[in-house]
Amino acid sequence: MMTRAEVTELVVTQKLKKGLKWTDIAKTLGRSKEWTAAALLGQMTLTAEQAQAAGQLLDLPEDAVLQLQVTPLKGSLPTAVPTDPLIYRFYELVNVYGTTFKSLIHEEFGDGIMSAIDFKMDLARESDPAGDRVRIVMSGKFLPYKQY
Amino acid sequence: MMTRAEVTELVVTQKLKKGLKWTDIAKTLGRSKEWTAAALLGQMTLTAEQAQAAGQLLDLPEDAVLQLQVTPLKGSLPTAVPTDPLIYRFYELVNVYGTTFKSLIHEEFGDGIMSAIDFKMDLARESDPAGDRVRIVMSGKFLPYKQY
Amino acid sequence: MMTRAEVTELVVTQKLKKGLKWTDIAKTLGRSKEWTAAALLGQMTLTAEQAQAAGQLLDLPEDAVLQLQVTPLKGSLPTAVPTDPLIYRFYELVNVYGTTFKSLIHEEFGDGIMSAIDFKMDLARESDPAGDRVRIVMSGKFLPYKQY
Amino acid sequence: MMTRAEVTELVVTQKLKKGLKWTDIAKTLGRSKEWTAAALLGQMTLTAEQAQAAGQLLDLPEDAVLQLQVTPLKGSLPTAVPTDPLIYRFYELVNVYGTTFKSLIHEEFGDGIMSAIDFKMDLARESDPAGDRVRIVMSGKFLPYKQY
Amino acid sequence: MMTRAEVTELVVTQKLKKGLKWTDIAKTLGRSKEWTAAALLGQMTLTAEQAQAAGQLLDLPEDAVLQLQVTPLKGSLPTAVPTDPLIYRFYELVNVYGTTFKSLIHEEFGDGIMSAIDFKMDLARESDPAGDRVRIVMSGKFLPYKQY
Amino acid sequence: MMTRAEVTELVVTQKLKKGLKWTDIAKTLGRSKEWTAAALLGQMTLTAEQAQAAGQLLDLPEDAVLQLQVTPLKGSLPTAVPTDPLIYRFYELVNVYGTTFKSLIHEEFGDGIMSAIDFKMDLARESDPAGDRVRIVMSGKFLPYKQY
Amino acid sequence: MMTRAEVTELVVTQKLKKGLKWTDIAKTLGRSKEWTAAALLGQMTLTAEQAQAAGQLLDLPEDAVLQLQVTPLKGSLPTAVPTDPLIYRFYELVNVYGTTFKSLIHEEFGDGIMSAIDFKMDLARESDPAGDRVRIVMSGKFLPYKQY
Amino acid sequence: MMTRAEVTELVVTQKLKKGLKWTDIAKTLGRSKEWTAAALLGQMTLTAEQAQAAGQLLDLPEDAVLQLQVTPLKGSLPTAVPTDPLIYRFYELVNVYGTTFKSLIHEEFGDGIMSAIDFKMDLARESDPAGDRVRIVMSGKFLPYKQY
Amino acid sequence: MMTRAEVTELVVTQKLKKGLKWTDIAKTLGRSKEWTAAALLGQMTLTAEQAQAAGQLLDLPEDAVLQLQVTPLKGSLPTAVPTDPLIYRFYELVNVYGTTFKSLIHEEFGDGIMSAIDFKMDLARESDPAGDRVRIVMSGKFLPYKQY
Amino acid sequence: MMTRAEVTELVVTQKLKKGLKWTDIAKTLGRSKEWTAAALLGQMTLTAEQAQAAGQLLDLPEDAVLQLQVTPLKGSLPTAVPTDPLIYRFYELVNVYGTTFKSLIHEEFGDGIMSAIDFKMDLARESDPAGDRVRIVMSGKFLPYKQY
Repeated sequence: MMTRAEVTELVVTQKLKKGLKWTDIAKTLGRSKEWTAAALLGQMTLTAEQAQAAGQLLDLPEDAVLQLQVTPLKGSLPTAVPTDPLIYRFYELVNVYGTTFKSLIHEEFGDGIMSAIDFKMDLARESDPAGDRVRIVMSGKFLPYKQY
Repeated sequence: MMTRAEVTELVVTQKLKKGLKWTDIAKTLGRSKEWTAAALLGQMTLTAEQAQAAGQLLDLPEDAVLQLQVTPLKGSLPTAVPTDPLIYRFYELVNVYGTTFKSLIHEEFGDGIMSAIDFKMDLARESDPAGDRVRIVMSGKFLPYKQY
Repeated sequence: MMTRAEVTELVVTQKLKKGLKWTDIAKTLGRSKEWTAAALLGQMTLTAEQAQAAGQLLDLPEDAVLQLQVTPLKGSLPTAVPTDPLIYRFYELVNVYGTTFKSLIHEEFGDGIMSAIDFKMDLARESDPAGDRVRIVMSGKFLPYKQY
Repeated sequence: MMTRAEVTELVVTQKLKKGLKWTDIAKTLGRSKEWTAAALLGQMTLTAEQAQAAGQLLDLPEDAVLQLQVTPLKGSLPTAVPTDPLIYRFYELVNVYGTTFKSLIHEEFGDGIMSAIDFKMDLARESDPAGDRVRIVMSGKFLPYKQY
Repeated sequence: MMTRAEVTELVVTQKLKKGLKWTDIAKTLGRSKEWTAAALLGQMTLTAEQAQAAGQLLDLPEDAVLQLQVTPLKGSLPTAVPTDPLIYRFYELVNVYGTTFKSLIHEEFGDGIMSAIDFKMDLARESDPAGDRVRIVMSGKFLPYKQY
Repeated sequence: MMTRAEVTELVVTQKLKKGLKWTDIAKTLGRSKEWTAAALLGQMTLTAEQAQAAGQLLDLPEDAVLQLQVTPLKGSLPTAVPTDPLIYRFYELVNVYGTTFKSLIHEEFGDGIMSAIDFKMDLARESDPAGDRVRIVMSGKFLPYKQY
Repeated sequence: MMTRAEVTELVVTQKLKKGLKWTDIAKTLGRSKEWTAAALLGQMTLTAEQAQAAGQLLDLPEDAVLQLQVTPLKGSLPTAVPTDPLIYRFYELVNVYGTTFKSLIHEEFGDGIMSAIDFKMDLARESDPAGDRVRIVMSGKFLPYKQY
Repeated sequence: MMTRAEVTELVVTQKLKKGLKWTDIAKTLGRSKEWTAAALLGQMTLTAEQAQAAGQLLDLPEDAVLQLQVTPLKGSLPTAVPTDPLIYRFYELVNVYGTTFKSLIHEEFGDGIMSAIDFKMDLARESDPAGDRVRIVMSGKFLPYKQY
Repeated sequence: MMTRAEVTELVVTQKLKKGLKWTDIAKTLGRSKEWTAAALLGQMTLTAEQAQAAGQLLDLPEDAVLQLQVTPLKGSLPTAVPTDPLIYRFYELVNVYGTTFKSLIHEEFGDGIMSAIDFKMDLARESDPAGDRVRIVMSGKFLPYKQY
Repeated sequence: MMTRAEVTELVVTQKLKKGLKWTDIAKTLGRSKEWTAAALLGQMTLTAEQAQAAGQLLDLPEDAVLQLQVTPLKGSLPTAVPTDPLIYRFYELVNVYGTTFKSLIHEEFGDGIMSAIDFKMDLARESDPAGDRVRIVMSGKFLPYKQY
């Protein structure tokens, strides 16, 4: 019996040993590299075909292939406030710009939220003579609160 | 003596009473609506000219104009895990996609972070027949860890 | 300048003094008692007409009527784990039945969530010879995670 | 010696391997799918007959069958504020509507609580052209505070 | 507009100034000293007659009398783990004897809880040559979990 | 090398397998069922004779018998605020009645505490036509703060 | 109506303005400087005579003199882990030497605790050529757990 | 590879099996029982000779002897607020007397701290007809803040 | 009666209004800008002369001058994990390099600590063609743990 | 499959067994002792050559050599507030001097931060007749917030 956390660690190790990149795995699954990484890091659910394709590419045991098809208990961070500097910067953005997001979205759309479920994103390198930049485009459906 | 939190509340109230939008204030300052909202919500520092222009537009007392020029103690949320549903969705993105961000950025750039300081963003409405979407483009300089 | 928390307290006091019930206020607004209570307790946004109608019924000052039209920073509880016995029982339900909700919903709908935004509810008394019961019907749109 | 957490994990794995649904197991036990899922996820206590029936259906070892009859230390979540998006939405409902529940129940019943023990619920799909909905009906006995 | 916390502080001060004991106030209300203290310390709800009687005895303003009739947001402690040595000792009892309570009650009654709502208690001095003792008798209805 | 937590789990399993009740074990030790349960659940220290008698009755290995004689690191709950509904109800009593305990004890005894060490209790079933009740009698020595 | 915290701040300010030392106030009360400081910093209860004597010496208003006679809600620190370097050193001692205290006391006395109620202490300067030292002598009654 | 926590547990078990007291081990090391207990409970660093002497007396494997010479990551408590009643009493002393320590030390020595590093203590039994007492003498160097 | 936090806010406002820099104030006090800033931000204690000089320069009322001479309850941050990005970077350094500091200092000095009391620092601009740098030199006395 | 935490523990043990110092390992890697210690304690990423050189020097298995080349999930402390006295002193510096750092850096550089990524440090012994001192020189690039 293998836990989902162990499947995630195994995926990372096998990817490292085989010298694969997320885009390689993404091509096999026919999905974006963003969704593929999230799914194999234990945050999304694969179909049976996707799980088998990933299992073959990464040499995963049958148990791991089965687990990849189960909807996981999501949440990839070990602490409420992340300690890893890269991940913390995103938390800092929420902390510093949280009320800015809120104010701008409500001004444009009214009361509601940007969905984190009906959501997609794209992460790319942006060349810049002053030092390359990380560019992230997020797109989430706006969901209004309704009166009833 | 007026605290920065009181200046922020006053800005919000005055903007409401005068029926101004962030883009109106942004135009006066010659800045983007994103930076303008963050600055007037107490997260960025205005120059003397910007503070005076904002003060005139919003009818702020001299004390408030002075405070807008002080570098604030940043952090716009009252709790470590935000309770407001709109802001929480961004925290959830960090929680669910945190290790995905980390893995994809390291794969592309090596060890380092996306700066949350040398950073800009753009928030816009994305028309969609299945319901409009919120589109956020973030761009932050990549900063590598160096060996020494 | 009146804070939203003070508006909430004033609403509660005025409702008490005038002997009004939530259904009375709901009728004035043409909305359900559930939405009406949430809105006037500072969790939802009223239109200008609704705010004025509520203000007249409850004798609220102009400032309060203005504040009721602002999208509030939501979150009605002072602590992460509620201490009030009635509210705690709902937190206990999440704690005891959380994985049950998760397992049953995923089994029926696949990976995704029940929206807490596109959501409505109805709370009523259920007569029972062994002691009356509280009956709450919740209805939230299912939002699937999509692959991209 | 098997811990209760291990029994829960084993139940989930066996259910997955055998392709069983909660309603299948519920039929075997003669109980609702809601109670059955909660019980086998380690939150309720089975009788000896129920434990044996479940054990046979799911091929559980004798130790697991014994453990299912012990009243468990309840609480199905690893953190005080849940990180899983589906479960978090229920926590958000408590956070946003907590004072609304409190106000409406006290107005209808007086001081007291809705029992989370003398409680039952029913979870079903609600067809809707705008997207199907999750419908949850909760029914808990009202327990009044008495004076003495 | 007086908050409930201010009503509690006023009650304590007035009781001190007038040299009243809880048993004196309890007699006026026709209730036990235990319920009376809890009610006037902001944890229970008084009827209009009781509130007026208490108000007269303690010289409370009309606002306070009104507030005593509102069901309060319960929870009398400022921190999750109490710091006051007397109150901490009760928390310590829960910490040290928690699993003992659980095991003995389940052995005698089966799965369920001792109600903290349908509950009463009596606190008295127990003479003892080795030093007097505090004697607390608690009585709470047993509520069984039911299968459905 | 067996940890104390493992001894506790073993005691619970053996008690279950042998169909023993706490009163059976208590008789063997010549102590009350309350103290016996607390001791064998890892909160009190047994003498060598008691440990051997308990070990024989429950078929414990020599290592476990040794551990039962060591003063344990007390604290039986895995979280600061208990999640188990039965145990939480006691925490709720501290939360709701904490200031009531404090006020009544100080009024009767002066400044000091009720000892949680020089303490005993008795837990019994109280028959009641409206549903049986749990009755707990606590008795703790009053310890006054002294001036020096 | 003056809160106890305000009485404490007033005591500190008045002591400062009048240039009094704790030993001066202790002499007036006929108590040690340790108990006197604790009492006037809001952790102990004064008798009516002591409160009046202290009030006269420090020029306190009648309200403050009254408050000094009420048993306070104890706990002098604003956070669970103290931030002040001097006070933190004592917390560090508990953290580093906690299990040492436990092991040595149990070896000498058996299971039980050192009372923090029937407790006194003495704090003095210890001359030392390598730099003077703070010497604290603590004496607390040992309270054994008893079997019943 | 043995962790430091496992070394600590092994030391405790071996000491128990061999019937040794801390004073016995202290004699072997030529140190006080207080320092010896702290060191072997994983809070201080032994020299090679001391580690070998302790290893021989307690029959520890070579790995454990090695680990005793490594400066440990200090901190002996599993939670920020200790749950064990004996250790909690020391935390309570910091909580209740923290500002008293601070005020008395600053009055005597000026701004600075009592060192928790250049620190020693002595723990002894104090005979008393009203019940024996625990006597702890602490001595820590005073370290002043200097201006620069 | 002015609290220390209010004195700190007043100092910051007055320094802003008079256009003074920390080095200006430091010159008046004859101290470094680092110590001066810490002291006037409520973390260090001024002598009577220094307090008066600072009071004159900054136009502070007599009460504030008095408060600057009191040893403050130190700790300048409102949360355990700082939210301000500049201050967080220092916390991140402790988080990322904490075990590195520990390992390097113990290797060089043996078991002990770097004093945060007998400590001074110097903060300066370091010109660099690739962007100027902040240079901080810290110097703290090493304090060894001694055996006794 | 070896976790990164296990690699770190193995590095520490092997370094101890072979009697190596960080400067020895640093020479092999051609890097400073500060960067080397951070990298091998699991906070930085090694190149393939560095990982092999370190692996040879410390006799690490192939798996560990592989792991040293993976960008780690950074954060070297087990708790948000460190308990180890040496590491806590650095946290205390952040707590006491945090606002001082902020004020001095903003005064010199304007709004922005000192980078914790483009950062280097040097730790050395400073001879001093009054007791040797730890000297740490930190140098981090200043990153300004830009307006856009």
